[in-house]
Amino acid sequence: MDERLQKQLAFALEIDKEKNIFRQTHLSGHGRNENDAEHAWHMAIMAYLLREYANEEVDITKVMLMCLIHDIVEIDAGDTYAYDEENLKTQKAREDAAKERIFSILPDDQKKELIALFDEFEEYETAESKYAHTLDNLQPLMLNNSNDGSDWVEHGVTASTIYGRQRKTKLGSEKLFEVTDQIIKEHVRKGTIRE
Amino acid sequence: MDERLQKQLAFALEIDKEKNIFRQTHLSGHGRNENDAEHAWHMAIMAYLLREYANEEVDITKVMLMCLIHDIVEIDAGDTYAYDEENLKTQKAREDAAKERIFSILPDDQKKELIALFDEFEEYETAESKYAHTLDNLQPLMLNNSNDGSDWVEHGVTASTIYGRQRKTKLGSEKLFEVTDQIIKEHVRKGTIRE
Repeated sequence: MDERLQKQLAFALEIDKEKNIFRQTHLSGHGRNENDAEHAWHMAIMAYLLREYANEEVDITKVMLMCLIHDIVEIDAGDTYAYDEENLKTQKAREDAAKERIFSILPDDQKKELIALFDEFEEYETAESKYAHTLDNLQPLMLNNSNDGSDWVEHGVTASTIYGRQRKTKLGSEKLFEVTDQIIKEHVRKGTIRE
Repeated sequence: MDERLQKQLAFALEIDKEKNIFRQTHLSGHGRNENDAEHAWHMAIMAYLLREYANEEVDITKVMLMCLIHDIVEIDAGDTYAYDEENLKTQKAREDAAKERIFSILPDDQKKELIALFDEFEEYETAESKYAHTLDNLQPLMLNNSNDGSDWVEHGVTASTIYGRQRKTKLGSEKLFEVTDQIIKEHVRKGTIRE
């Protein structure tokens, strides 16, 4: 087998580990914790089906790829819960080291391509990145809403913390932010999100 | 919320159940059984990274979408192991009923689009379908190979049965079939696949 294909297959096998990185979010039906690979799969399909609501025209292939790969660094860096302020401080350094190690398994051109895509996602500047983040925020919110907000209750999260993150949902899609806002308000009213 | 968006979000929530459909394949590192959502995520990334080896030029967005949605019907129909001859007989009828129920949650245009995509995958005729099937075959073979062929040993699978399925890998990619063939031959030599 030639070296290029060998590297590609080694990377393909390496990312299998993402299925062992569990998140704080629980599956619908009050299920078990979700892992990163499942989350990425779910986001990518949602991105495609809801693309008509993106604020700007997006290259949907690029968005789907961003969704699929955006958490690969967590194989080394672990999942950082959106509202865990201590771990959020070291998140960037941990993820940078992981990015270099994991994407270096690929042939150089694909390493560069995937790192560029990952960085674009992180930088929150392009239409594709903003829209991909919208899904990154909406997908767990949707699951948590289906579970009567139990993840918010467990972590005692406040509305202002949630809005701190979810405000950016609006940058990718005004329409999907409306849904988000409606869900948050309902949970504040029911007391599952603290005011 | 308007009816269209409501339907789209209802579908997005419904497919969360795919994360509970477990396959016979085990994760690398002699891990637990893999579920359909993880398998689809893995296939979609592999499809993108290995597209240079597709026999024919493919619309990679379409391939990735096929990979992502091809097992959604298993939410109702369950996973049918590739070498389980009894269940393979009823697979089509079970999956047809599931297809109608699940995709009908979507707005009509998206229902039609996803059913067409699912059918195209199943029909094994277009370049995209053949290449997507190559990944559907290669991804579990890769995991099983990394686990010293333990899934083949457990099921006592023979080389001819494996080739029966994997021969079609060649229709999507001659090059990736070479890898497949190499792996199978090695396991026959080591006795993990029966002759």
